[in-house]
Amino acid sequence: MRVRKRKGAEELLAAHGDIVVADPTEWQGRWQERFGNNHPIHIEIGMGKGSFLTGMAAAHPEINYIGVEMQVSVVSHALDKVLEQNLTNVQLLHVDGSALTEYFAESEVDQIYLNFSDPWPKKRHEKRRLTSKNFLAVDEAILKPAGEIHFKTDNQGLFEYSLASFSQYGMTLKQVWLDLHHSDFAGNIMTEYEAKFSAKGQPIYRVEAQFADKEKK
Amino acid sequence: MRVRKRKGAEELLAAHGDIVVADPTEWQGRWQERFGNNHPIHIEIGMGKGSFLTGMAAAHPEINYIGVEMQVSVVSHALDKVLEQNLTNVQLLHVDGSALTEYFAESEVDQIYLNFSDPWPKKRHEKRRLTSKNFLAVDEAILKPAGEIHFKTDNQGLFEYSLASFSQYGMTLKQVWLDLHHSDFAGNIMTEYEAKFSAKGQPIYRVEAQFADKEKK
Repeated sequence: MRVRKRKGAEELLAAHGDIVVADPTEWQGRWQERFGNNHPIHIEIGMGKGSFLTGMAAAHPEINYIGVEMQVSVVSHALDKVLEQNLTNVQLLHVDGSALTEYFAESEVDQIYLNFSDPWPKKRHEKRRLTSKNFLAVDEAILKPAGEIHFKTDNQGLFEYSLASFSQYGMTLKQVWLDLHHSDFAGNIMTEYEAKFSAKGQPIYRVEAQFADKEKK
Repeated sequence: MRVRKRKGAEELLAAHGDIVVADPTEWQGRWQERFGNNHPIHIEIGMGKGSFLTGMAAAHPEINYIGVEMQVSVVSHALDKVLEQNLTNVQLLHVDGSALTEYFAESEVDQIYLNFSDPWPKKRHEKRRLTSKNFLAVDEAILKPAGEIHFKTDNQGLFEYSLASFSQYGMTLKQVWLDLHHSDFAGNIMTEYEAKFSAKGQPIYRVEAQFADKEKK
């Protein structure tokens, strides 16, 4: 997500160390301890400004949400929303999504959300797509057995690619939506991008894909 | 496919026993013998009036095509096309697609095509969809190990259902197209329905799904 640099964003994050985790490696394997409960942990990789994450957190107080986003200014907007809504079941990480095994222990995460990830349309950039096999291997490592990825996008090429990539990784497609906003799917929480984009009438795609229930290596 | 009844259709089929197979059970396990070669066998279940089947047969003389269609009048139109083009690599069966194991031996078929199958949109009719698990079990039985189904439809609900059904059956999605006619897919042969329908601008969906390469029971 491209976003204007925000003055004082770093200071804002530093001032809210209870929500924005300065060194997430310290909490690897102990996230429930940090939340102070034993609720399931759902993470969103590339949370952007946090509309989806905070919307989900408000709707599901019985779940702990962790948002991962690299850009400091973007994280600061998500932080605003957490503070405004006084949410106690949200933690924010301004780290790179490719190093998730450093922040989460094996099987520590119950569910992963990917929303409107960068499509990287050029074939030579396939490895950068968050639904390519190297990222799926990281996701599988931190997810519990038979854990799920819930993925939304408006990008046709990325969705075509991702369905095949999930399947070829050995994941099962539990359900597919080819036009989410005109379906009977209940409880959709829109991202900033989704709200803006869906007004143009293009379909939003969605899939719930599940990893195999094998013993983890 | 709904079609006007054609006078003399039964007589026409009977007069062309070399193309329209009167009793396909007799040829179970011996289709290559009937074709007089050892070429791979591709079947289309629900071939309609045969535009796709005969188009494919003309484009791929190195493959034997068998079209399956229940309605006599519809089969007679496909027969017209086979005769007009003088195709020697096509056989037609006017039988019910659910009894395919009576007509084909285990692993006898190399590939299956499903094109614009009846969507049966009501949940209680799920079992009638050609991509539901009971039909997939029949397809798997007659296909060689790791055989493929190539499926096209314009029906969004059926395509959503079918992607999940293939995946949940244990099939791998090799490739998915969400707008076939605006993709770089080469060599698409249109069905009658597809040619008519695609003019309206709705997308045509396509998927290539592969069964697991396990030893057959």
